[in-house]
Amino acid sequence: MAAPCPARPRRLLPLSLGLFQGALLLFFALFVTYGEPSARTEDANLVANQLYGIFPLFQDIQVMLVVGLGLLLTFLPSYGLSAITHNFLLLNFSTQWALVLQGLLHHFHRGQVRLDLHSVLTAEFAAVTVVISVGAILGTTSPCQLLLVAACEVPVYLACEWAIITHLGVLDVGGTITIHVFSCYFGLGVSKGLFGASRRPVNPKETPTPRSDLMSLVGTLILWVFWPSFVAVLCQPGDAQHRAILNTLLAISASAVTAVVASSLLEGDGKLSPSHLQNGSLAGGVAIGVVADMAMPPVAALALGSLSAVACVLGFRFLTPLLARKLTLQDQCGIHNLHGLPGILGAAASAVAILAASADASASRFSQASPAGGNASEAAGGQWGDRGAGGQALCQVAGLAVAIGGSLVSGLLAGALLRLPCLAQPPERLCFDDSLYFKIQDAAGSPGPGSTDEEGALALKERV
Amino acid sequence: MAAPCPARPRRLLPLSLGLFQGALLLFFALFVTYGEPSARTEDANLVANQLYGIFPLFQDIQVMLVVGLGLLLTFLPSYGLSAITHNFLLLNFSTQWALVLQGLLHHFHRGQVRLDLHSVLTAEFAAVTVVISVGAILGTTSPCQLLLVAACEVPVYLACEWAIITHLGVLDVGGTITIHVFSCYFGLGVSKGLFGASRRPVNPKETPTPRSDLMSLVGTLILWVFWPSFVAVLCQPGDAQHRAILNTLLAISASAVTAVVASSLLEGDGKLSPSHLQNGSLAGGVAIGVVADMAMPPVAALALGSLSAVACVLGFRFLTPLLARKLTLQDQCGIHNLHGLPGILGAAASAVAILAASADASASRFSQASPAGGNASEAAGGQWGDRGAGGQALCQVAGLAVAIGGSLVSGLLAGALLRLPCLAQPPERLCFDDSLYFKIQDAAGSPGPGSTDEEGALALKERV
Amino acid sequence: MAAPCPARPRRLLPLSLGLFQGALLLFFALFVTYGEPSARTEDANLVANQLYGIFPLFQDIQVMLVVGLGLLLTFLPSYGLSAITHNFLLLNFSTQWALVLQGLLHHFHRGQVRLDLHSVLTAEFAAVTVVISVGAILGTTSPCQLLLVAACEVPVYLACEWAIITHLGVLDVGGTITIHVFSCYFGLGVSKGLFGASRRPVNPKETPTPRSDLMSLVGTLILWVFWPSFVAVLCQPGDAQHRAILNTLLAISASAVTAVVASSLLEGDGKLSPSHLQNGSLAGGVAIGVVADMAMPPVAALALGSLSAVACVLGFRFLTPLLARKLTLQDQCGIHNLHGLPGILGAAASAVAILAASADASASRFSQASPAGGNASEAAGGQWGDRGAGGQALCQVAGLAVAIGGSLVSGLLAGALLRLPCLAQPPERLCFDDSLYFKIQDAAGSPGPGSTDEEGALALKERV
Repeated sequence: MAAPCPARPRRLLPLSLGLFQGALLLFFALFVTYGEPSARTEDANLVANQLYGIFPLFQDIQVMLVVGLGLLLTFLPSYGLSAITHNFLLLNFSTQWALVLQGLLHHFHRGQVRLDLHSVLTAEFAAVTVVISVGAILGTTSPCQLLLVAACEVPVYLACEWAIITHLGVLDVGGTITIHVFSCYFGLGVSKGLFGASRRPVNPKETPTPRSDLMSLVGTLILWVFWPSFVAVLCQPGDAQHRAILNTLLAISASAVTAVVASSLLEGDGKLSPSHLQNGSLAGGVAIGVVADMAMPPVAALALGSLSAVACVLGFRFLTPLLARKLTLQDQCGIHNLHGLPGILGAAASAVAILAASADASASRFSQASPAGGNASEAAGGQWGDRGAGGQALCQVAGLAVAIGGSLVSGLLAGALLRLPCLAQPPERLCFDDSLYFKIQDAAGSPGPGSTDEEGALALKERV
Repeated sequence: MAAPCPARPRRLLPLSLGLFQGALLLFFALFVTYGEPSARTEDANLVANQLYGIFPLFQDIQVMLVVGLGLLLTFLPSYGLSAITHNFLLLNFSTQWALVLQGLLHHFHRGQVRLDLHSVLTAEFAAVTVVISVGAILGTTSPCQLLLVAACEVPVYLACEWAIITHLGVLDVGGTITIHVFSCYFGLGVSKGLFGASRRPVNPKETPTPRSDLMSLVGTLILWVFWPSFVAVLCQPGDAQHRAILNTLLAISASAVTAVVASSLLEGDGKLSPSHLQNGSLAGGVAIGVVADMAMPPVAALALGSLSAVACVLGFRFLTPLLARKLTLQDQCGIHNLHGLPGILGAAASAVAILAASADASASRFSQASPAGGNASEAAGGQWGDRGAGGQALCQVAGLAVAIGGSLVSGLLAGALLRLPCLAQPPERLCFDDSLYFKIQDAAGSPGPGSTDEEGALALKERV
Repeated sequence: MAAPCPARPRRLLPLSLGLFQGALLLFFALFVTYGEPSARTEDANLVANQLYGIFPLFQDIQVMLVVGLGLLLTFLPSYGLSAITHNFLLLNFSTQWALVLQGLLHHFHRGQVRLDLHSVLTAEFAAVTVVISVGAILGTTSPCQLLLVAACEVPVYLACEWAIITHLGVLDVGGTITIHVFSCYFGLGVSKGLFGASRRPVNPKETPTPRSDLMSLVGTLILWVFWPSFVAVLCQPGDAQHRAILNTLLAISASAVTAVVASSLLEGDGKLSPSHLQNGSLAGGVAIGVVADMAMPPVAALALGSLSAVACVLGFRFLTPLLARKLTLQDQCGIHNLHGLPGILGAAASAVAILAASADASASRFSQASPAGGNASEAAGGQWGDRGAGGQALCQVAGLAVAIGGSLVSGLLAGALLRLPCLAQPPERLCFDDSLYFKIQDAAGSPGPGSTDEEGALALKERV
């Protein structure tokens, strides 16, 4: 299998990563600077205040991505170290790669790329798409393959994001369409492109243990707690940000309760399935992003959160097995249930919310609507400009279509690329096992069971 | 046992929860709106600044309750998933329930309930009482029973909080009396009302392992770190909030060191008991809440923290076994030691602090007191209004009495309610075991050992 | 061995700690107050705003030290409880001890020591040095010995910090020299002073398991996420703080990727070593502290982060074994690789950055430099005052020399003190085992395997 690439594949990861780090240094040396320091005291105070406004949210998001998402992926009992490390590596690599591409695309200005916390944040959002996408192929791919996914996905994301937000004018403050839907279908595309119609047998190492499920649930809770920061960080400070936080809180709270209801109803004996909880509790956060700062009543956030959780749990119970059976589509983490279905729900909700706000505003011009609701809607009603509410609602749907179409096609292509034999895809029997990527010593301090991979993997399985 | 409730009890949880979610949606649809957007730019800036002031503290508190408290409860080695999930579910359910009740009680204003971050925060404080209380019956009750506790406790809490804070005018910025003391005695009441005089045999699954103790200790540390945010979030911004943070830092730091001293002295061989550390380190935070923003010298915070830790560790060593023996009172997490005893100490300290500040202020009028101490006390001296310092001190004690009395009585009643057979209390031999509530697969992917509960639980125990 | 100290050594820990707490209470009662409350409304607003600026960062740092560092130390599979508890105890004890000494040294003012959040923060920085240093002797020392290290190290740190920052005028906003380099060589000195030329055999309990490595990696990730807060908390608000955050983000991101590259290249089979990742990812954060707020291009932060990670991984692979072989120097956590080598790199970089900024500023006076870079450098160029850039660069090197020299000598002396037999150093065969310090019950609830220590330790090892 490794015949076409005789240069030992084990070396490919450090060499390509090292090469990239070198190129990154060169790019930064040539082009990137910090902004000029503020000349006046008032400006300095403004910078400080802006920093105090954004930095705590930025840190919350870092915790989500690095710690929360990392832990969420440790549900495979023998693959925890790899899952959390690959997530960490991909986040860093993709952020750096996005900084380069963003710098080239957006910030080129007088031959200099200005770096600030906001540009790091948007680069990190690009990285989020990568770590979501690779959930579909968790445990069955090598780090080299994952890096190639990142290398492909970041530019496609930036292009799609430009098309959807800048060109189409889609409203999506929390990244529901541009991040969640996009990354979900990109990931599914990669999985299909890579595995084609081959059917993987079930590997016993895929089954979570109560302990690995507990770690994963802790990851969910960290994500759940900080989700409002993720949705609200790019909102207009003031009322819109406040509303985005409240809407997100309502949506994820409804999701958490509804996920328990749905999981308990679906299982014959009334027991809960850990994966339903781990994902369903977050579904509301995915869906609410696109409408979080819009003028809509709080009940809409609650309803959207509940609906998303139901969709997510139903997806795990019925759709994922169906897709695996009919389309031989492998989705290891169930990203379609957590990011795809709720994202589509959210996009649909945004179109409805825009139409409803407009209808509400028209109505309130002629009738005695309740003052609070009326005013909020009125303010919202005029914001679509020439396009009108109908046009904006259509745009939201068009944005969704672009996200799904663009990501599926590019994901399939990227997945086909991953078949290159030099990328060292692990053979089936060594999947889901840390000993393939980590030096694991046995208690006597000897080189450990990993010295010959196959035996090592088996020995490790016995031991853990 | 299930004869009077033939409708399969397994369905009761999702049905009642689902019904509640439906009612919640209806209530929100009919009554709840967000506030009107700010009309002027200055107002918008003010909203943004207020948000920056409160939101990071709010997030800290969310981490405490969802992640920290959840982990603290995972000390039962086979009950981690259930403990952390039930905590999460109760937090969400109780917050939603409190939002409804609060909306009805406080915010009814022109037919609309205004929702903002502050009202979510106070609803969450109501939820805190529930998750503290159920610590007394951790592992021995079904989710349905826990939800019934929440349904009963939230309205009682709101009533008691109104009586103590609004009616009596008790000062309690950190919720020592209204949250900690109240929830402790409510929980003990529930435990007594539910189990009566029956004596439970010791279950081997109640014994923590080093690994479960470690997870629980991590939970303690998370709670410990963010405790200042919990105490200070509702303080007057500025000096009072700064002082509350410092007092809390001093108190919990003294607690942490004193808990080690006390635990080490009490055990014959000088070893530490993990549960002493897990709880004693936090005792100072419970006690300091009621005096955190008062004018008192820093040494008082240190002393209160140390005393609380001693009381907590002594409680674990002597009082809990005594109560179990004499009153057959079951307190699984030792909430009486962490919340009851330190809370009473704190309430007593608040009365002393008020009297001392008043005496100090009087003294400084006639003598040359140290300027700093004198001024601070003087400022404090006049704040009790007509009531005088003696009256205010009396009020603090009266508030404590109301909290203990109200919670015990209502807790006993709620506990008696929990005996309803349809609530599916788990039989003794299935307590403290995740397999009763979670679908746990074995490594071969088969439905797992939980298929017949009793065998499953036994099999699981062997395996973990 | 315990002959010279017949008073049971088990009692020494609580007695000495208790005595210290008493002395602390006395000191606080006599001297410490809070500042006077603000007289005017504007002052109160200012206090509130300063609090909002510093408090979120303060909380981030607390999470790092208490949770992140605690978890990082749990890589020893049977020593997790002890590692995390000793870290917590040392942090609290050292902060209290530093508050006393700082109070005596700096804040004595009209017979009163004023306490505020800033003084707690600087006291905590003193405590950081202790918890870093004891990493060299993790698992092989008793809590009494660790407390003695803290008692010795805090005053030496305060003296060195005064000499380096106040006297020499070294620039070190992130504590690279004063905290990291100092604590590293103090810890190595203690290790050498305590163990001398004796060679410890390898203990099987020293070998991490995949599970303990995973917990430790989570600790790394928590430290990694909050590192920017640690570096930036004492920066001038505004541009300097913004720059410090960005530089730290770049440095740790480069570290994370480079650590993977270096570890993968160094191991023959291309696998990663968990300890390389756990430490190498943070190396850039250590190094960047001293230059974080200086005027330098972003590429410098990236390069410094990469270099530090390489140095750290090379240190683990070659230098630590070499030092152990040639100098019989024991460094359990590899603090020399994480704090020593990157710290020295950072100090060197700060000298270079100062010289480069000065040269750049001179050049830009006569040529058409790019406006942004030119201005930034110019602003920086004039800030060294009479001393000039060359003098300041020399100062940085002198500061490094003082930190290394002072810490090594005092560490050696402190290590010699630790040999006092009454400090109850654990015998070799009981090292790295929680059962020596914790009451660990077996599942039947009996006193447990720890009742006779040696058998207990063995039994525990079997069980875990």
